Amino acid sequence: MNHKPLFAERLRALREQMSKEGLDACLLPTSDAFQSEYLPPQSRQVEWLCGFSGENGAIVVTHESAAIFVDGRFMVQITRQAPADLFQYCHIHNHPPAQWLGQNLAAGSKVGIDGYLHSAGDVEQHRKILAEHGIELIDVTDNLVNRIWLDRPAPGQHPIILLSTSGQASLDKRLKMAQILEERHCNALLVTHPECVCWLLNIRGRDIPCTPVVMSYALLHQDGSVDLFVDTDKLVDGFHEHVGDGVNVHPLDHIETALAALAGQTVHIDPDETPARLYAQLASSEALLRQYKDPCLLAKARKNPTEIAGFRRAHIRDGIAMCQFLAWLDAQVTAGTTHDEGTLAEKIEALRSEQPLYIEPSFATISSLGPNAALCHYDHRYHTPRAMGSDGIYLLDSGGHYFDGTTDVTRTIQVGAVSDWCKQMYTLVLKGHIALATCRFPANTTGLQLDMCARLPLWQQGYDYDHGTGHGVGHCLGVHELPPLFSNRFDSEPLEAGMVVTIEPGYYRADQWGVRHENEYEVVPVAGDNEVETLAFRPLTLVPFDTRLLDRSLLSTAEIDWLNHYHEQVVEQIGPALNLAEELWLAEACKAV
Amino acid sequence: MNHKPLFAERLRALREQMSKEGLDACLLPTSDAFQSEYLPPQSRQVEWLCGFSGENGAIVVTHESAAIFVDGRFMVQITRQAPADLFQYCHIHNHPPAQWLGQNLAAGSKVGIDGYLHSAGDVEQHRKILAEHGIELIDVTDNLVNRIWLDRPAPGQHPIILLSTSGQASLDKRLKMAQILEERHCNALLVTHPECVCWLLNIRGRDIPCTPVVMSYALLHQDGSVDLFVDTDKLVDGFHEHVGDGVNVHPLDHIETALAALAGQTVHIDPDETPARLYAQLASSEALLRQYKDPCLLAKARKNPTEIAGFRRAHIRDGIAMCQFLAWLDAQVTAGTTHDEGTLAEKIEALRSEQPLYIEPSFATISSLGPNAALCHYDHRYHTPRAMGSDGIYLLDSGGHYFDGTTDVTRTIQVGAVSDWCKQMYTLVLKGHIALATCRFPANTTGLQLDMCARLPLWQQGYDYDHGTGHGVGHCLGVHELPPLFSNRFDSEPLEAGMVVTIEPGYYRADQWGVRHENEYEVVPVAGDNEVETLAFRPLTLVPFDTRLLDRSLLSTAEIDWLNHYHEQVVEQIGPALNLAEELWLAEACKAV
Repeated sequence: MNHKPLFAERLRALREQMSKEGLDACLLPTSDAFQSEYLPPQSRQVEWLCGFSGENGAIVVTHESAAIFVDGRFMVQITRQAPADLFQYCHIHNHPPAQWLGQNLAAGSKVGIDGYLHSAGDVEQHRKILAEHGIELIDVTDNLVNRIWLDRPAPGQHPIILLSTSGQASLDKRLKMAQILEERHCNALLVTHPECVCWLLNIRGRDIPCTPVVMSYALLHQDGSVDLFVDTDKLVDGFHEHVGDGVNVHPLDHIETALAALAGQTVHIDPDETPARLYAQLASSEALLRQYKDPCLLAKARKNPTEIAGFRRAHIRDGIAMCQFLAWLDAQVTAGTTHDEGTLAEKIEALRSEQPLYIEPSFATISSLGPNAALCHYDHRYHTPRAMGSDGIYLLDSGGHYFDGTTDVTRTIQVGAVSDWCKQMYTLVLKGHIALATCRFPANTTGLQLDMCARLPLWQQGYDYDHGTGHGVGHCLGVHELPPLFSNRFDSEPLEAGMVVTIEPGYYRADQWGVRHENEYEVVPVAGDNEVETLAFRPLTLVPFDTRLLDRSLLSTAEIDWLNHYHEQVVEQIGPALNLAEELWLAEACKAV
Repeated sequence: MNHKPLFAERLRALREQMSKEGLDACLLPTSDAFQSEYLPPQSRQVEWLCGFSGENGAIVVTHESAAIFVDGRFMVQITRQAPADLFQYCHIHNHPPAQWLGQNLAAGSKVGIDGYLHSAGDVEQHRKILAEHGIELIDVTDNLVNRIWLDRPAPGQHPIILLSTSGQASLDKRLKMAQILEERHCNALLVTHPECVCWLLNIRGRDIPCTPVVMSYALLHQDGSVDLFVDTDKLVDGFHEHVGDGVNVHPLDHIETALAALAGQTVHIDPDETPARLYAQLASSEALLRQYKDPCLLAKARKNPTEIAGFRRAHIRDGIAMCQFLAWLDAQVTAGTTHDEGTLAEKIEALRSEQPLYIEPSFATISSLGPNAALCHYDHRYHTPRAMGSDGIYLLDSGGHYFDGTTDVTRTIQVGAVSDWCKQMYTLVLKGHIALATCRFPANTTGLQLDMCARLPLWQQGYDYDHGTGHGVGHCLGVHELPPLFSNRFDSEPLEAGMVVTIEPGYYRADQWGVRHENEYEVVPVAGDNEVETLAFRPLTLVPFDTRLLDRSLLSTAEIDWLNHYHEQVVEQIGPALNLAEELWLAEACKAV
């Protein structure tokens, strides 16, 4: 189906609204008022306007032209989704929107945004760059797309879930955060990230796909009490007993009034997390703002022993589903049965669903064959799913939210003939994975410092990959949880014992195939009498790597030992839960190389 | 000699001056008005007050107490130089002066500084932290130490040197910088770093030890003309012909008047390089300030082909002197002749002096035996020099300024019996050196990202070192030239082809011995058909590593190959210039392991 006329018509309607507001351009991100990574249908305005369905991007529309900005993961995907004669394609880091606007607009121009869809920090940065070109940024309180997207879906209605696997009472968490408030001489903390609100109150929800949170904001006070702003219809029996004393619930749209009432108080606020609209509102009241990172971010990144134990149990169940899938897939290949990317994704989802405590996928499954595996964030739902039969490589990046933990695992699997060169690249990426997974490092080391470890085997041959090497993982919360972060671009807080991270280097050969090896790891202290306090990674994921794709000659003895030892653990932990055929498959898949 | 009564008396006199100014504390850095790393005698106020002679530190004095702040390199040295009952010892990164002041002073206190001795950026940062504690920072225009240091030495008088090895005419450099000014819509660039001034004008001087610069400031205008502020007695015949058109010379102390005259102009200024006093002066005039990094810093970091060729020639001459020294040292050890750290330092300096184009040491030679080698920036001039005989390890970190390049090399040499454990650590540090030296990496990679590469072999065993892994090197300018920088703490600009860097990991066993392996490298593009544009390091230093200290079992085949290949290059380039005995020594020192 050719969507181009539809998008052209929507752009025309948007430009009409821009004219009404006296705007020369508008900037629209893939975001909502809760900075969700995965957007519910009612918030997918970028997709509605241009077709792009990925998780990180923005479009800019002027009266003459339009452009779409995405990161390296999505550079190929936009060429398939957003019509090239309507949208210029830009790399969001190398040629960001503000720079593009500076080049394409005259001084004196006005650019409209919706202040709920950008953090205050983002807006400040944009404003600064645009100001250098004499361009003004305007928060249009009545969202422009709202006016023209007449059949916009209504938000879902899902009751709040009371989580019993958190390992720490909400009141205890709130008092700890309140202590930080006191140390920083603040009266209140504004929490606008639903993942932080849900962590703080030990609640979950189903409002946003792939992220089990409730759309909500919170105000924490110095006595540990909280004002929770949420659709009150979502409250359930036992809510107040569960969250403990001092939680007062208000309708979501009372947040602006509540902020206005903070005049005279000192408010702890994180401009990088807070919607620009709310930040501006507080700034214009008589409240005194103190800018700090939201302390809930770091607190929830440090998993407690109950959460870690939950992660371990969830990974055993997730490993069972994954091994069942991989055994089944091998049998299908042997039998010559061909499936397509869609049915393969449904199969792993069905197997996960059979596991206790499973909630939903932790992100949109990447189920990709051959050339589609070269698109790191491929989504078969937006393409004609490719069928097995002609490709050598199948890449599956998937995961689940369980009530006791969240998983994220990528395996690259042989489903046909592959070249020696493909095996070499598979092995180089695995060498990078092992190098980082076996790295010991002192406390106070950041992911930016460690990231190169996973890239070095590729760099040495003149290759690289255009995405981060890993991210923190929430406990039944966002699968991409920061801090921590392994990146070659962005810094983050140092790694600490108790953090849960992914390690996921890759290599992508455009139009041919892709490789990615992803495990989750717990950060653990290294025991013993060390001169320097060091940390290391302990595997959580329990799924075999496909040893058929290895070029063993490229591996060192230490790397071979690591792989064999890892596979022994998989057999030990997962084997007993499988049926006989699956167990035989696992023994073969995990035999020493 | 016990200096304690002397320092106690000087502190008393300083506190008297603080009282006169109504100050509760004062902060004094190891710096001068030119942010020199190596201070001329007249600027060594910290040493005069407390005895500390190192290059990076500060003291804080209140009416009740005093503290000295240094980085990891100097933590042991201060215990030997600054009396413990007069000065509290603090790590400058872990417990910085502003934090200490916040903890030790009451709200409403006043802290005095000399605005010429701090950059505007530093002062701003201090002011911010102190403001959180209600403490005020005051620029005392009449330096407090000046008033009590009555026999302060007068500055030296050295004529300007006209450098003929720069590879690019001053006017050409000035026009390129002026182009940047134009792009940034600025009328003038204030250059306050003498290394930048000297680079810009292709001049050098002898005003500051170990840094061949002239104490000077410059104002560059959009037409490429320059106002140079310098002691005019230092001008030499041929100066104007050498620097080219448009250079107007003014006395040094006219800088403040010249800045006042910039009212109405847009001035390009780097708050991290500019003395706070000058910055404040401009800010209080009607000039419009645009904050950017001084563009000369990056321009001079990118060496041109003439400079690189000069570096190569200088390193051959430097390698000859070093090999002569090492051959001589081995002979002395064999003969049982004992020297002390001072005479050893004099010997290498004497050998370098015999080489053509030699100017001076590029930094204070670190000549350290046994336990003194555990002090990374040991200076035998401030101790009783230790004599050979009882130690296994001699560490020599030294270098020279030549008119065509600057060298910086560290070798760890066996001069007696050493333990197996010492050999293991020697080898682990060498593994780190080789790992970074053989690293290929994409353009846009910073030293912060690469730094861990050199630490990893140590980290894996629970060890680390508390200093950076390397730094840029100036062309007959500062030996510690930023950018670039390899650090686990500080970020810097990405590495680029043409930059010259050191790689110098180490390990220090307190009270026993130390190991450091340092070479200079040129950053070069990797030729060939690569998917990603990558860079690599090419050795400049040509001096053998002591293979007698190797634990060969810890080295991989690739590491052994690297070492043997490196030693082949040393024999090829240095051998022909040595006498027969030295050449035989070199052949033995460089034989394949």
